[in-house]
Amino acid sequence: MQQQKSVAIVGSGLVGSLLAIFLRNQGHHVTVFDRRQDVRKVEFSGRSINLAMSNRGWKALRGAGIEDEIRKLALPLDKRAMHVEGKELYFQKYGGEGEAIYSISRGVLNRRMIDLAEKAGAVFKFEEKIWDVDMREAKLYSGESEKSEWKEYQFDLIFGADGAFSRIRHKMQRQSRFDYSQHFIDVGYKELTISANEDGSHKLDKASFHIWPRGEFMLIAMPNLNGSFTCTLFMPFEGEVSFESIKTEGEADQFFEKYFPDIKHEISNLKRDFFNNPTSAMVTIKCFPWSYYDKITLVGDSAHAIVPFYGQGMNAGFEDISVLNEKMNKYGDDWEMIFQEYQNERKTNADAISELSYRNFVEMSSKTADPMFLLRKKIEKRFAEKHPNQWVPLYSRVTFSDHPYAEALQIGDLQKAVMDSIMTIPNIKTKWDSEEVEKEILLTIERLNK
Amino acid sequence: MQQQKSVAIVGSGLVGSLLAIFLRNQGHHVTVFDRRQDVRKVEFSGRSINLAMSNRGWKALRGAGIEDEIRKLALPLDKRAMHVEGKELYFQKYGGEGEAIYSISRGVLNRRMIDLAEKAGAVFKFEEKIWDVDMREAKLYSGESEKSEWKEYQFDLIFGADGAFSRIRHKMQRQSRFDYSQHFIDVGYKELTISANEDGSHKLDKASFHIWPRGEFMLIAMPNLNGSFTCTLFMPFEGEVSFESIKTEGEADQFFEKYFPDIKHEISNLKRDFFNNPTSAMVTIKCFPWSYYDKITLVGDSAHAIVPFYGQGMNAGFEDISVLNEKMNKYGDDWEMIFQEYQNERKTNADAISELSYRNFVEMSSKTADPMFLLRKKIEKRFAEKHPNQWVPLYSRVTFSDHPYAEALQIGDLQKAVMDSIMTIPNIKTKWDSEEVEKEILLTIERLNK
Repeated sequence: MQQQKSVAIVGSGLVGSLLAIFLRNQGHHVTVFDRRQDVRKVEFSGRSINLAMSNRGWKALRGAGIEDEIRKLALPLDKRAMHVEGKELYFQKYGGEGEAIYSISRGVLNRRMIDLAEKAGAVFKFEEKIWDVDMREAKLYSGESEKSEWKEYQFDLIFGADGAFSRIRHKMQRQSRFDYSQHFIDVGYKELTISANEDGSHKLDKASFHIWPRGEFMLIAMPNLNGSFTCTLFMPFEGEVSFESIKTEGEADQFFEKYFPDIKHEISNLKRDFFNNPTSAMVTIKCFPWSYYDKITLVGDSAHAIVPFYGQGMNAGFEDISVLNEKMNKYGDDWEMIFQEYQNERKTNADAISELSYRNFVEMSSKTADPMFLLRKKIEKRFAEKHPNQWVPLYSRVTFSDHPYAEALQIGDLQKAVMDSIMTIPNIKTKWDSEEVEKEILLTIERLNK
Repeated sequence: MQQQKSVAIVGSGLVGSLLAIFLRNQGHHVTVFDRRQDVRKVEFSGRSINLAMSNRGWKALRGAGIEDEIRKLALPLDKRAMHVEGKELYFQKYGGEGEAIYSISRGVLNRRMIDLAEKAGAVFKFEEKIWDVDMREAKLYSGESEKSEWKEYQFDLIFGADGAFSRIRHKMQRQSRFDYSQHFIDVGYKELTISANEDGSHKLDKASFHIWPRGEFMLIAMPNLNGSFTCTLFMPFEGEVSFESIKTEGEADQFFEKYFPDIKHEISNLKRDFFNNPTSAMVTIKCFPWSYYDKITLVGDSAHAIVPFYGQGMNAGFEDISVLNEKMNKYGDDWEMIFQEYQNERKTNADAISELSYRNFVEMSSKTADPMFLLRKKIEKRFAEKHPNQWVPLYSRVTFSDHPYAEALQIGDLQKAVMDSIMTIPNIKTKWDSEEVEKEILLTIERLNK
């Protein structure tokens, strides 16, 4: 057990709430600040992609002793359901027997996590806006506005769990030698909903992650416990087919009729929601260092916001907390050492999942229509099935293991090099499933592994 | 002539002052704000690398009608003077006959530029701190502190010329879809001085840029009009030989005795200055967009701070102003179009000089001791001298031309590809100056140019 500290967490989102539980379990005095209203008292905002909890997320929840509670909120998805234009619906299994990702509503999860953190003894202060932080002294300043009278709080430790646009990081960024980047992609997203059937059942297969890929844009749907699906439309902000190009309800109607005729009529209040729900941007944020001596550290999106195309944003944030907790157990009261090792270990892995997520975005938006890319995927799949020990797919390494993201990236790059070489074999199109190609893959793996 | 506008420039540095003159020449009403004291009333700060004015800088000054005034402040340097350990001093010409870069003190230049801008009718408001900007309305807010009472100013146009840590950009950064990065290098710098001889003459050759390369660190010296030299020591912040490792006057003395014995005794107040002068950091800053509709744009370091290893920071900032002025002449009162074309044209070129400057840093810090790198340089030099039309060195394209930086980078990459290929010729070490190699270079250029 560590010596009891007075700890502030800024941000009551998923990562902040999880951290509160871990810190309470370690015996600390925990106050969580949030500038927004208590999420348990408001309708959720309609700008959230449903979450896909996978192995790293569950591991962290297990560590906090709340896995069973959260399992009740989640629906297992063991496959993708591909709604491709001009093809019958088909399915792609995610992994082996019993492997699945879990669909969970951000709002539902966040509310439960706050309940559990409160139960564990954390104190939540909602609608209290933090405007400044004294990093040396671990003081926080809150108030109505940036220019109003401020209230001062003194803590021993402060955690910035305040998301991609973190106020705590914002202050750190003014230090010399603080590296920082924010990069927006030119695709936005909008949430839509498929309601439950009248009897409360789901309108689509509820054990699938549904995808309607359409080249430059796509629609996805993930099931909720109440029978509904949360849908997300990803589309360029500008351009020929884009959010900007759809200006009227008639145009929205036409757009769905043309590209999503099979699902259009299931989407509730399509035209209303399309214009009422915000079009949100997606950003990759990187920074370093994450910590300030033994006083302050960043966790989750405030340290490493990533694009959502690998379904790992929350999982990566939760893994931060697992790692922090490991370091607490290892170093006891040496908080500078805890923060130091935490940031060094996590930075490499956060950069890796950031890169993998961005690559998935590029892949989804530009390559899914390329026949050579699809052939490559087919060859990989065939080989992985025949040689499961030689070829664990990258997706499985990221999603169903807790090996470091950086390792997944590295092995993924090796696999890419193997396939780059294989794709140059003459007549690969006709002999892709031959024994010759299979042997060549084995040889290439051996050669590149040297 | 454009319709007269009420224009604010935030920042009275070199780029801000130059812009003030151009805008006055176009007939606008110009107010320049600076949070610092009037630089004409203070001793300069001792944290400035001397400037090297080159072709792009002179072209902009000519456009403003102040070239002749500024020429009086500058000393031409037509070569590098290399002070290599264990070798006689030797010289490297920068370019052809009459080609030189010009050493000029930042303080001296800035003072004169402000004088000239005032003479042209710009109004300077020093020690007035801008805390906020209303981008839609082009309003500025100034005051004693962020929390004090603020004064509001209304303008038609606002230019952010407030440097790498720009307040104006800081506000733009809070917009969605604003890309931004700041990346610090792990090397810092410190200013030192070599005083003039008693008769006012220079202690080293005054027509040279002096370099003492020492692998991981280096000392440079550039002459001033008054007979002194401004020296800059570049060295890692941390590590075996680093700013951090030199803690006492004795250690500073030993360090200079060991690595710079030839110049140590010429540096004035070495031990005092070493500890009194700050160790400054160097940062690369990139962002986009630079402009907000027809209201606001960024110029100079606020849009594109770069590391100083190509001597192009000020030149690139001045070229921004040349290009802005071209666009003003082209589009008259359509400020949105002026800002749009300015930012699109300049962004590509700013990214290019940023990349080139960073590469020069990497080259200087890790490659100058590599014999294969030196051989490569020797081969290039020999070829460029024999075939001046086939091979304009990258340095000359950047320094002595006004072709776009992006073009220099592109051709530089081609030259690099040629040399990568040449360096794989067997026995290149022995036959580097053979006719065979010369012919091979010509063939490779032809092949890659296709």
